[in-house]
Order: sequence, then structure tokens, then C-alpha cells
Amino acid sequence: MAIAFQIGATDGEARATTLTTRRGMIETPVFMPVGTAGTVKGIRFEELESPELDARIMLGNTYHLWLRPGIETIRACGGLHKFIGWERAMLTDSGGFQVWSLGALRKITEEGTEFRSHLDGSLRFLSPEISMEVQTVLGAEIAMAFDECAPGEATVDEARRSMELTLRWAQRSKEAFERLHAAVLPNDSGEERELPSARPLPLTALPAEAGKQSMRGTLSQRQSLFGIIQGAGHLDLRRESLERTAEIGFDGYAIGGLSVGEEKHVMMDVIEEIAPRMPAEKPRYLMGVGTPEDLIEAVARGVDMFDCVLPTRNGRNGQAFTSRGKLNIKNARYAWDQNPLDESCGCSVCRRHTRAFIRHLYQSGEMLASMLLTHHNLAFFLDTMKRVRQAIRSGQFAEFRREFTEQLHCGLE
Amino acid sequence: MAIAFQIGATDGEARATTLTTRRGMIETPVFMPVGTAGTVKGIRFEELESPELDARIMLGNTYHLWLRPGIETIRACGGLHKFIGWERAMLTDSGGFQVWSLGALRKITEEGTEFRSHLDGSLRFLSPEISMEVQTVLGAEIAMAFDECAPGEATVDEARRSMELTLRWAQRSKEAFERLHAAVLPNDSGEERELPSARPLPLTALPAEAGKQSMRGTLSQRQSLFGIIQGAGHLDLRRESLERTAEIGFDGYAIGGLSVGEEKHVMMDVIEEIAPRMPAEKPRYLMGVGTPEDLIEAVARGVDMFDCVLPTRNGRNGQAFTSRGKLNIKNARYAWDQNPLDESCGCSVCRRHTRAFIRHLYQSGEMLASMLLTHHNLAFFLDTMKRVRQAIRSGQFAEFRREFTEQLHCGLE
Repeated sequence: MAIAFQIGATDGEARATTLTTRRGMIETPVFMPVGTAGTVKGIRFEELESPELDARIMLGNTYHLWLRPGIETIRACGGLHKFIGWERAMLTDSGGFQVWSLGALRKITEEGTEFRSHLDGSLRFLSPEISMEVQTVLGAEIAMAFDECAPGEATVDEARRSMELTLRWAQRSKEAFERLHAAVLPNDSGEERELPSARPLPLTALPAEAGKQSMRGTLSQRQSLFGIIQGAGHLDLRRESLERTAEIGFDGYAIGGLSVGEEKHVMMDVIEEIAPRMPAEKPRYLMGVGTPEDLIEAVARGVDMFDCVLPTRNGRNGQAFTSRGKLNIKNARYAWDQNPLDESCGCSVCRRHTRAFIRHLYQSGEMLASMLLTHHNLAFFLDTMKRVRQAIRSGQFAEFRREFTEQLHCGLE
Repeated sequence: MAIAFQIGATDGEARATTLTTRRGMIETPVFMPVGTAGTVKGIRFEELESPELDARIMLGNTYHLWLRPGIETIRACGGLHKFIGWERAMLTDSGGFQVWSLGALRKITEEGTEFRSHLDGSLRFLSPEISMEVQTVLGAEIAMAFDECAPGEATVDEARRSMELTLRWAQRSKEAFERLHAAVLPNDSGEERELPSARPLPLTALPAEAGKQSMRGTLSQRQSLFGIIQGAGHLDLRRESLERTAEIGFDGYAIGGLSVGEEKHVMMDVIEEIAPRMPAEKPRYLMGVGTPEDLIEAVARGVDMFDCVLPTRNGRNGQAFTSRGKLNIKNARYAWDQNPLDESCGCSVCRRHTRAFIRHLYQSGEMLASMLLTHHNLAFFLDTMKRVRQAIRSGQFAEFRREFTEQLHCGLE
């Protein structure tokens, strides 16, 4: 696989590991800011790269980028990194979750998912093969298998049907991924290999015959491909999904289908059941979760990687995450409050600006409110994970976890 | 006056001068980014302060800040600098232009301007005395006299009536300003002086009796007060306005009432007629103007200071100012364009991002589009003024002006 994975320290189930990619080293547990359309909303790359945030890996969304600007544009611009100007590592999701969350706008068949674009209503089709094709053009260090998500409250039958489909799609994802890589990347002798003809790629995303040509230049090294464990809240299905996904064999494994409407305890039950059983020698990624507390609890159960829109989305909606819990800047009590968002935070926003000012910006509809809240929230998430890594490496994770949780619940002054 | 003014070099009518304030030195010709509500829209202060932009002075809008968050909040937070966290110099306008531009929502009388707040429709009243009071609480290094603006196409009678009113308001502004300063600032013996009773201040903006107490702590040093020259497009009125405003005596002088719908040549005629006649030993400020070309032409006629929303507002609307003219990022021709916004620009946006990516961000409604365009536009305006200063100091302004203008007109590649 294109990334090297090494476990540095463990503390109970918690792990401090290192992912080495050609675009830099990523220490885990790691939080990955979500860059939906090629931008982490409301913050510049320079800030993400600054020592204060130091985000080592960013997410990109296949669904969004495929629809706009479109894969042709990104290909013409040399792949996603080059198109957006981000030189650190990236992970792309498969689009499976996004099309699933379109609800009434999509129709899932064995072959893939037919859906209407949320942008223009046009009919589109996404399958494991197309997702792999698009992700190969995007060229992130880590690509994700194309999966189907079951709703949080899915019955065991629904969840099994969905899980079985995800397993078949996982197999197809891996095959398509490998054929694409074989076709695009030069072999050991430096010659380019032909596209195997066993299962013709639909090449829907790209003009016919463009398969090789189109991706040459954007993919210079093998990507990693992660498989996704599904099964809703049914622990037996989750265990089966894990086993059979691991049998297919991926470079890393993700827990999908959480934070989709299930009860909070269900999420933690699944993580508790599954995370420690995931292959220890591969990265473990919990998709789309969660609050700082969720992250700490998942780390305690052996998870290495996280992504979530909470710090950015909630920031834009006026919510700050702090060491003492959430703060809603709209609240009138902050109108004259000259404290920073979080007294314990050393980020550039907390060093400089008061709650009163940020509230004024928010009330005035000023973009800077979103920018400052986003910056602080990301700083808080990223700094928390840094402290988690330090705690694991020094064997003090249990203590850190207890203190962090206690402080979170003692409320804002 | 609180700021020291020194002429460093002249080249024709163009001047390179220095304003020394207790919050840093400002070299002119200078462009002042507009911070309407206490924020230059779409950019963080850290970027404004970076060597790349190095904005030495920012504008604040009395009208906007008075209505929201309100003067009580800003007073409680220790004045505008402290409230927003900006430690460099500031200039506040008087609110005169803003209430005038409310149009049908305002009624102008001898005493002042009654208007309805654009926020909640509440009836408000702004006068020279109230404007001075508010500006004293805001505490910028430079305050502006309260004036009335005449429309660009005003007849000579309308323009004269407006100009006479502005002159009476200028006198009242100065008197109120001096009485407020006398009341608030300690005298030489360190004792605070009483508020003179000659013309009681209405204190509408502040609770009665709050005059002294309320401003203590926000104003630690004398502000400068600039007078404003009006007279629409009538050169004889403009000359008279200049003479009689200078007779009242201010720390600097501004040309107001331009860029309000008059023909382009009218604006340049007024600047050409008035700027060189403005007191040479005081700063000359052209309010609300303009394009990079306008700035260069006004510098050539002796203007020192500028403010304008063009770089920020047009940035948010997808327009980039470049050395080869304006660029509309919405244009489909930029969809695959891997050039920077301006090949000649060394700003962090042009060093990193392509037109294709910024266009994608704009089309996707991403905040980052506004942020990047705003940054580049401000970098372009501020860098242009830096080059103007260097050209004047090296006696090569005429050459610079010719080359800059030629390049501007040769069009985008």
C-alpha cells in the first residue's frame, strides 16, 4: 500500500500510530477537517497548515467534486491536490454516503445508485467502478470503497440486505481500483500496462477510451483503499461485516453508517464491539463522527482516524466548542463579554478576540464570525487530538480522558 | 493634533508623506481598507497586518457601529480598537454619508438628520454633536466632521445650500469635538476639566450625565479631526468650501461627495481643481474613491489618503483587480485556467491558487472565494500604493503612472 502504517504506542485499546505518505507524516489519533468541495469552509489552507492547527490530512467529497467542477476539470488541472493547491495528504470518500443521504432523490440497484444531482436535478449514476474511477482521478492518498449506508433504525433484515450489497460493492470497488491502478501506473519495467478486460469499466465519468490517458499525470503513485464496515446497530451484522470486509482485504478499515439517526448508546456500542476487533495492523477510521467527547471515547476503543463537519458547520452556525462544553455565540449574555471563546485555548482567535466582538460579527451577518468560529473550533479539535496522542504516548490516556470529560461537563463560566 | 504630519518627498503634485500616530506610522499615499462594522469583510486582521498587505490604518463606520452593536457596548469594551482587537490606527467617518445615502429613509434639518435605521426601522437622529460624541467613544486616531453630501447631479442652488449646511455643521463638529476632548482628557495638571456649558451636548447617544464617565478609559489621547469639502461638481463652490472649511481649521481635509453618481470627468475635474489647493501642510483625503486608476490619478493631483469598498465588495462579487484590468471570475473562460488571478502579483493567493479553482469556489458559493478575492484585491491596492510611494520618493512617479496605466489597458491575456 502507498502509505506505511506503524503503531507507536498503545494505552489500553487506545493507539498512537503513524501513517507515512509521500505527502507527509500523519500521527494518529487524527482529526481530518472536511473539505467538501475542495475547501474546508471558511478557512484558508495557510491557517490549516500553520503550527497552531497543523492539519496533516484533509477530506474531499467525491460526490460534490464529481458534480462540480466535474472530473474533467480536475483532471485537466492535474488532480485534486494540484487543482486546489493543497500539498498535504488527502482522503476522498466514495460518494456512497452522499448519494444515500439524498433520500427520495436516489434509487439503489445492484449495479449502483441512480440519483438526481442536488445542483441541477440531472439524472446521474454512481457505482463502485465509477467511484473508483473518479477517486483515481482525484488522486488522494486514501480512497474509500463505495458502500451503502443503512438508516440508524434499520431492521435486521434491512441492515443485512444493505450490508450484503456493501460487501459485493466492496469486492467490485477493490477490483476496479486495482485494474485502474494497473492501467494507469507504470509497472516495474516502467511500461504502462493495458487495462484488463475482464470487467469493462463503464467510464461514465470520463469520455470513452479516456481511461488511461485521462488519468496519466494525476496519479503518480499507488493510492490506499479502505473498506467500510456496515450493519447499522446490529452487532452480529457488524461483526460479520468486519470479518468479510477484512477477507476481501483493504489497506485500512472504516466504520461507516454511524451518526445517521441512531441512539447515542447504539453508536458507542457498535464502536466498542467493532473497533478493537478491526485488524490491528491497519488504520481504523470512524466516519463522520463526532463531538470532541465522541472522539475521545472512540480513541479509548481503538479508533485512529476521524472526520466530521461539526467544527466547521457548527462554527458557521454560531457554535463554539470549548474545553467546558458548547457555547452559542448568539446568546445575549455574551454581548459585553470580554473573555475569549475558551479561556484554556491558545489559538489566534482566543488570543485576540472577545466573545462580545464575535457575537457582534455574528449578529451583523459578517463572514468573519464564521471564519473566527471555524478557526477556533478546528484548533480545539486538532489540539485535543494532539493532547490525546501525547497522553497515549506517555501512558496517561485514562487520566487525560477523565479530566477532559470532567471539565467538559463542568459548564461555561 | 494627535498625529504628526511630515512631507517626505514631492514629485510634481504627488506627495510622499508620513503620518505618525501613537498606533504606528502611516506612509502616504495610503489606501485604507474599509472596516464597516469593525471588520474588513472577508479577511482576518492577521492578514491585514502581514508584511504582504501591511495595512497601517483601517476605516470604521460610525453609522453602522452606532446602530450595532451600539455605542454602549463599544464603550463597555473600552473603545473600538479594544472591542475589535485591532491595535493599528483607525479613522472613523462621521455617519453623514451613510445617513444621506439612506435616501427616502432620512430627513435633513438644520439641527441634523433624522432617519430610520436600516436594521429595525427605528427612528434615529444624528447631528454634528452626536457624531462627535460617538466618534470620541469609538476613539479612532482620526475622526471626521459631520457633513451633508449633495447628489452628483445637484444644481448649483442645491449644492450651495448643502455646502452651507456642511460648513455650519463643520463649525459645530469642531466645537463639540473640542468640548468633548476638553471634558474627557485630563488637562496639563492632570485634573479632568468640566464639560463647557456654552452649547449643551445632546448626549443622545449616551445616557444623560454619562458624558465624562462614559468615555473615560476609551480616549487616552487627543484625536485628529478632519474637515470635509463639499460642493458637488461646481468648481467655484468647491473652492469656496475649501477656503471656508480651512478657515474653521482642521487637522486634515477631505474631499467628500464624489463617486456619488456624477460623471467620471466631473470627479477628476474636482480633484484637479481642489487637491493642489488644499493646505499643503495637512493630510489630504479623498473619500470613497476608487479604482486603482482613480487612485493613481488623484495622487498625481496631490491626494494622500484613500478609502474605498471596491477591493472588498467587488471581491465578494467575483471581481479581481489586476495589473491588466478587471477580471470577472464567473466567466466560463476561466474554468480550466491554471494561471493565477494576476501573473504580476506576488500575494499568497496568486502564489498558490489558480483562476480555475477560485472560479470553482465562486460557482459553488464557497466563502473561500470571497476570502481569496478580497485578499488578492487588497494586496493589489496596497501594493500599488507602496509602489506609488517608492516612485514618488525616487522621482519616478510620472513614469510609474504611465506604465501602470498602459498595462492596465492592455487587457488580460
